[in-house]
Formats: sequence, structure tokens, C-alpha cells
Amino acid sequence: MEYVHGYSARETTRLADQAGALAGLLHAGTAYPAGSQVLEAGCGVGAQTVILTGNSPQATFTCVDISAESLRMASQRARDTRLGNVRFARADIFDLPFRYASFDHVFVCFVLEHLPRPAAALLALRQFLRPGGSLTVIEGDHGTACFHPDSDRARRVIQCLIDLQRLGGGDPLIGRRLYPLLVECGYRDVSVSAKATNATFSQLARR
Amino acid sequence: MEYVHGYSARETTRLADQAGALAGLLHAGTAYPAGSQVLEAGCGVGAQTVILTGNSPQATFTCVDISAESLRMASQRARDTRLGNVRFARADIFDLPFRYASFDHVFVCFVLEHLPRPAAALLALRQFLRPGGSLTVIEGDHGTACFHPDSDRARRVIQCLIDLQRLGGGDPLIGRRLYPLLVECGYRDVSVSAKATNATFSQLARR
Repeated sequence: MEYVHGYSARETTRLADQAGALAGLLHAGTAYPAGSQVLEAGCGVGAQTVILTGNSPQATFTCVDISAESLRMASQRARDTRLGNVRFARADIFDLPFRYASFDHVFVCFVLEHLPRPAAALLALRQFLRPGGSLTVIEGDHGTACFHPDSDRARRVIQCLIDLQRLGGGDPLIGRRLYPLLVECGYRDVSVSAKATNATFSQLARR
Repeated sequence: MEYVHGYSARETTRLADQAGALAGLLHAGTAYPAGSQVLEAGCGVGAQTVILTGNSPQATFTCVDISAESLRMASQRARDTRLGNVRFARADIFDLPFRYASFDHVFVCFVLEHLPRPAAALLALRQFLRPGGSLTVIEGDHGTACFHPDSDRARRVIQCLIDLQRLGGGDPLIGRRLYPLLVECGYRDVSVSAKATNATFSQLARR
């Protein structure tokens, strides 16, 4: 897995900022019942983990990532925020060290877009869901960025990210194909909703 | 004002379908206190009016449009749904027959995108707001449409709409410039949020 944004300290800060800014947008509606066993696949540095686990304090979370360094930071973040309902494990999504059908819910956020085989990942994850369990997938779509005033330079920055992510084997436009992807992987009762966000620099530009 | 979608019966049906499908997306958060006087500027055939007035049954709505035929349909729709808190008046946004500062709130939905002078319209409307009143503007941005699988034909359909709307003097991409537009027109405490919606045809394609 090639992570297009890299593993710098600056990227760790960006991930936490992004998670905080988008918490309402991304996590509204994701709350798990007391006693649920939840798998977060690809927790990275734990940016989403803090919000996810905080919204469901009575559920138990198992958060895995392939990067030991990211996991170390995720664990630290969990300690800093005194999360009591989460354990971390280093693991590959394609070779998880858990019993099949042992989770009530699986949560995946900004992971599939980086994988050369997202369908294989979804198939692999499905095995760990108990019958009737749920999967929540949150992914981006970098092809939907737009600007005002329109800016060729801004477009080129986004296109550069898209090109690099594709070179790394990922799909930076995966958001728009989540529905067919999930259906093809055998998930049932698939529901997809598009979310948008905007940033205003008009006030900054005025200064 | 050139209304790019025309005034056919089919368009009236489309407007009602659109309003129903997007009700949660567009109207969440728009509820006016009991006793409020609200102006809906550009109510058209009343597609949004029914939802708007239904969400604030204790407010009083004055809904204007420049098209007598559209207003006739809006009135009929209001009668059909037994709305008691709305009156209709034929009027030009640039020459409204009301006292200045006589409304607590102004509501505008899918109107500015069709006007050659949206800023002038916002300035005109501001005169009818009492000090401390609020304006709610909901506009689209046809430049943000995207497809999966990507389709040159689908893109061309959207581009055709964009081109036609521009030829008519409108701005089909006005959504992305609402913030500077409102600030330039003297509105204060401007807050803009982007909303997205998606439609899935995968199941249809399977049949």
C-alpha cells in the first residue's frame, strides 16, 4: 500500500485537522450500540479513531493498520484522550488475525482509495463480519474539487494528487463508485450518500 | 429573466420531484419562528413553497414570482395541500410592492442562478429585510456534476445546460460564489455550506 500523502509529522497534523473539521460531516449517523464489537480497518494515526470511539463509548473497538509507526501514534493519541474502549493491532487487511464473523461492524475511512485492490479488501473484510453485521465505508473523490475564482493552478495541484495516487495504485475518484463496488462484493442493502464540504478564503484574501 | 428549463408541464413535475427528493438536503435547518413574516422571492410553481411553509406552520409567507402562470400553479398547489399560512403575489424581485424592512426573513431557492444581475437582486431584497433579519439562499452549481462510469455524453448534456443557461444570462455555477456575492452585497454573518446529492442507477443497469 502506497500512501500518497506520506508519513510525515505534518501529514499526521493534517489528518487530525481534517478529522476534526469533518467530524460532523463524516461521523454523523455512525454510532454503535453498547456491547458491539467494531473493527476499524486502516486506522492510520488514529485521526478518525478518536471521534469514532468517542461517539460510541459503550462499543469495543479493534483498530488495525499495516504501519507500526502510524499505530504507535494512534495508541499515543488514544492514551492522550483517555479512550478506554479501543485496542490496536498491527495487521494487513488482507490477512487479519481474527476469527471469521467475529465483528458486529466494520468501519473503513479513507483507506480503499489507496489500495490497488479495493474490491479484494472489501471481500476480505466481509469474512470478519457476523451475519447481519454492517460495514461503513467513507471515501473521498478528488475529482469533485472546484474553485471560485476558478484557478488553473489550483486545478493542477489537485490533478497532481490524482496522478500521484493513481501511480501508487490507488483510485482518487473511488467515492463515486462505492455503490457498484459494494454490490459487486456481495454487500446487501447498500446505501450511499454524497457529502460535500467547502472552505472560504474570501476573508483571508481581503486582508 | 430567462428560465433555462422552460415552463412546460413536464418541468413543473420535475420541479416538484426535485423538491421532494431534496427536501431533507435543502430545507433541514430552515424553520422560522411563530409570527415571522417571510418573503419567498421567486417561488415559481411552488415546488419549494409547500415544503418551506409546511416546516414553519406558525410563520406567515408571502411568495412572489414574475410568472403569472407559475403563480397560478403555485396557488393551486397550496390549495391542494391546504396551506393556510401563505399568500401569493405577482411581482418583480427588482420592483417589489412591499414596505421596506417589512420581512423578518427572506428565502430564495434556485432563483439567482437564472438572473443576469444576481447581486442587484440581493441588494434589492436586502431593503425588505428588517434590521437583524435573515436571508436564506439555496442555489445549485451545475459544474460539480460527476459520473461513474464517466461518460462523455453525460458530461455533454450537463455542458449543454451550462451553455444554455449562460446564453440566457444566468450563472449555472453560482453556488460556488455565493459567499463573496453575499458579502459584496452587504450581508453580514454570512455562512455557506456545500451540500451534495447522488443518484444510483446501478440497479437499473442490471435489469
